[in-house]
Amino acid sequence: MSEDYKQMWSDLGLDLGAHDALLEVLGQGYQQIFLSQKNRPEGMAYFDFVMSEVHGLRIKELVDEKAAGRKIIGSYCVFVPEEIVLAANATLVGLCSGADFATEDVERLLPRNTCALIKSSFGFKLGKVCPYLESADMIVGENTCDGKKKAYESLGPLVDNLYVMDLPQVKSENGKALLKAEYLRFQAAVEKLTGVAITKDSLKAAIRTVNAKRAAIHRLLLLRKADPTPISGLDALLANQVFFYDNPARFTESVNKICDELEKRIDNGQGVFPAKTPRILVSGCPQAVPNWKLPMIVETAGAVIVGEESCVGERGTRNLTDESGETVDGMIDAIVDRHFKVDCAIFTPNPDRLAHIQQMVADYKADGVIHYGLQFCQPYLMESIPVEKALEDAQIPCLRIETDYSMEDLGQLTTRVEAFVEQLK
Amino acid sequence: MSEDYKQMWSDLGLDLGAHDALLEVLGQGYQQIFLSQKNRPEGMAYFDFVMSEVHGLRIKELVDEKAAGRKIIGSYCVFVPEEIVLAANATLVGLCSGADFATEDVERLLPRNTCALIKSSFGFKLGKVCPYLESADMIVGENTCDGKKKAYESLGPLVDNLYVMDLPQVKSENGKALLKAEYLRFQAAVEKLTGVAITKDSLKAAIRTVNAKRAAIHRLLLLRKADPTPISGLDALLANQVFFYDNPARFTESVNKICDELEKRIDNGQGVFPAKTPRILVSGCPQAVPNWKLPMIVETAGAVIVGEESCVGERGTRNLTDESGETVDGMIDAIVDRHFKVDCAIFTPNPDRLAHIQQMVADYKADGVIHYGLQFCQPYLMESIPVEKALEDAQIPCLRIETDYSMEDLGQLTTRVEAFVEQLK
Repeated sequence: MSEDYKQMWSDLGLDLGAHDALLEVLGQGYQQIFLSQKNRPEGMAYFDFVMSEVHGLRIKELVDEKAAGRKIIGSYCVFVPEEIVLAANATLVGLCSGADFATEDVERLLPRNTCALIKSSFGFKLGKVCPYLESADMIVGENTCDGKKKAYESLGPLVDNLYVMDLPQVKSENGKALLKAEYLRFQAAVEKLTGVAITKDSLKAAIRTVNAKRAAIHRLLLLRKADPTPISGLDALLANQVFFYDNPARFTESVNKICDELEKRIDNGQGVFPAKTPRILVSGCPQAVPNWKLPMIVETAGAVIVGEESCVGERGTRNLTDESGETVDGMIDAIVDRHFKVDCAIFTPNPDRLAHIQQMVADYKADGVIHYGLQFCQPYLMESIPVEKALEDAQIPCLRIETDYSMEDLGQLTTRVEAFVEQLK
Repeated sequence: MSEDYKQMWSDLGLDLGAHDALLEVLGQGYQQIFLSQKNRPEGMAYFDFVMSEVHGLRIKELVDEKAAGRKIIGSYCVFVPEEIVLAANATLVGLCSGADFATEDVERLLPRNTCALIKSSFGFKLGKVCPYLESADMIVGENTCDGKKKAYESLGPLVDNLYVMDLPQVKSENGKALLKAEYLRFQAAVEKLTGVAITKDSLKAAIRTVNAKRAAIHRLLLLRKADPTPISGLDALLANQVFFYDNPARFTESVNKICDELEKRIDNGQGVFPAKTPRILVSGCPQAVPNWKLPMIVETAGAVIVGEESCVGERGTRNLTDESGETVDGMIDAIVDRHFKVDCAIFTPNPDRLAHIQQMVADYKADGVIHYGLQFCQPYLMESIPVEKALEDAQIPCLRIETDYSMEDLGQLTTRVEAFVEQLK
């Protein structure tokens, strides 16, 4: 950390000792996994800086925003529309859920058979080590999977500002109507929190800001079609992860700057790995910071990840919100339409996801798919079986893995991934 | 079996060898668990007969109904309204899901970490041993938990008549509107299947028939308030289970007949176990035929089960549908109101369930609660932790168990239950 933030962390109520330990592990992991990579784009220096300040400068910015009267809203899901948050002059940040913490305390509140992502969100709260959570004026939960839906009932008493958004399970007319009703209810709750009424102009500006951010990350992702790929899967995942934390305008500018560099790399035939390196699409559960286990294994096993069919990836960012609305209600409809396209496995049936995986395999010239499932994540694990079958029927090799945040299965996973990569050569 | 049904089973497409083996195990289990009980009410002879003919005479009745043009609809959940089925001149039956079968085949279609109930429903299909499923003209799935919701996507291709009903996750106005929309859609689907339009009179008659069945089983359950209890938990569970299979009018008559006998027993101070036997309320996941493991353990450990807070129990049957409606739409509203009260753990939040558990503890003078959770059933396992805490805060002893359909944990469960019962003495 480039400044001493201890007073700020203490004011936020963090457990300084535990937090120091977390930052040390995080820093070491980042050094080993990211900074040791070869041929990185120069623009990644921005993300290296962001990550080095992820609990420092970025939190100071949020604290400063709060001091200036702006509200901070934390979320765990891509169904929470940033457009509405920004339009009410508030800031949306993703909340910590990518590492095991305080597991023993967590398992007093949640069944052992709960996915690592949910356990992690509780661990960061119980261990008092997530400055985003502690900065938030409103924490938004959402009824996606059973695990999260029911876990919010136990998270509620641990915080004093949980707001729960209901979500549909079916992409029917009723489902869409529910999503709209819930976005309108969320709009009212955000307006109440901020004291700022959303207007046609503020919502249009917010849609443009978020679209620009999505367009920038999507531009970066699409550049990975090139062979050799100009950026590693690890670095691309990092950009996808920072999408949820960073100031939107700065993120957009920084990503577009990297894209300029990547385009030059492509023109020069310059890549992070040699041409013809086996190309892998990762599909499945989200990978939150600092959950870098799978891409680390894949990219040290002689392959490169060329796409993430994931909430932290194209599933979350590929669609833009229509900007042409001329009324708040019309723009809310556009936001509903945009989010209703997200092909999360909570929906039944969910054929768009398989179509998107197959499209991504073609677009990114992937040689194979690794289906990334978090243990006990029922929606994605259930869906992984027919997805694997459909891919194999289409002659697309698929490796279905199920893991958590521990490092205990590192050896076993490495062996399986190496064997899979060998098969793609 | 009192007749030779082999031709019928063969015509239904059952695997006769596997089915014979299943019936043999079922018969032996029934003999050991039920017929060995002492002081059983004479009226249980009816259920002994029903169970001895559960794949025989009852299936013949369904086959005869089909031959006469009546349609059979199979279901896995108490949210499928029998009133609508009966009003369209069809028959509703619960589908097999209480025993492990063809597990190896099942785990090629579903993750290993799927609850036993869902795996069982697939096992009975893949093993071709459920004559109810094979008799059904329509199989109704429903979006309750993630496990079932996503599993129906894989069940669909195995059958040619799956209908999936969406369900709300929140007891909001929107949630109720969704339930009504789905019941209207179901009504249309059933009418299309049967070719019978539901009328005011047919729906009113159906509501009365189902209410009478619910009132009868509830009458039986309430008689367990007496000490000594006039019926064992095993026998009461069996009646709760047969509720889903039997002809409604015959079930109502038979249960009321047993109730007359039980009332005499109570007047005479006659029970199945001595007075002051520790009394246990079982709360949690449904126990489908032949899942009798927990009550068998409890009632051989020196305690008696006096209530089931379960779909196969009071959660599923205690509420009646208002009979006063004078239009089809008004009666559909009453059916929606009635089912919207079911306090399944799929709802968030679900405070009515805790209130109901505490009410049942008081009403049935239970000394303690055993929370019955099926392994990997996220909604009930998640809810079990705050439920246990609330009960213990209210000085109600609670034992939280998590199990499946295997007998591997029999010893461990017995030890835990015995220790719990000892604590209640």
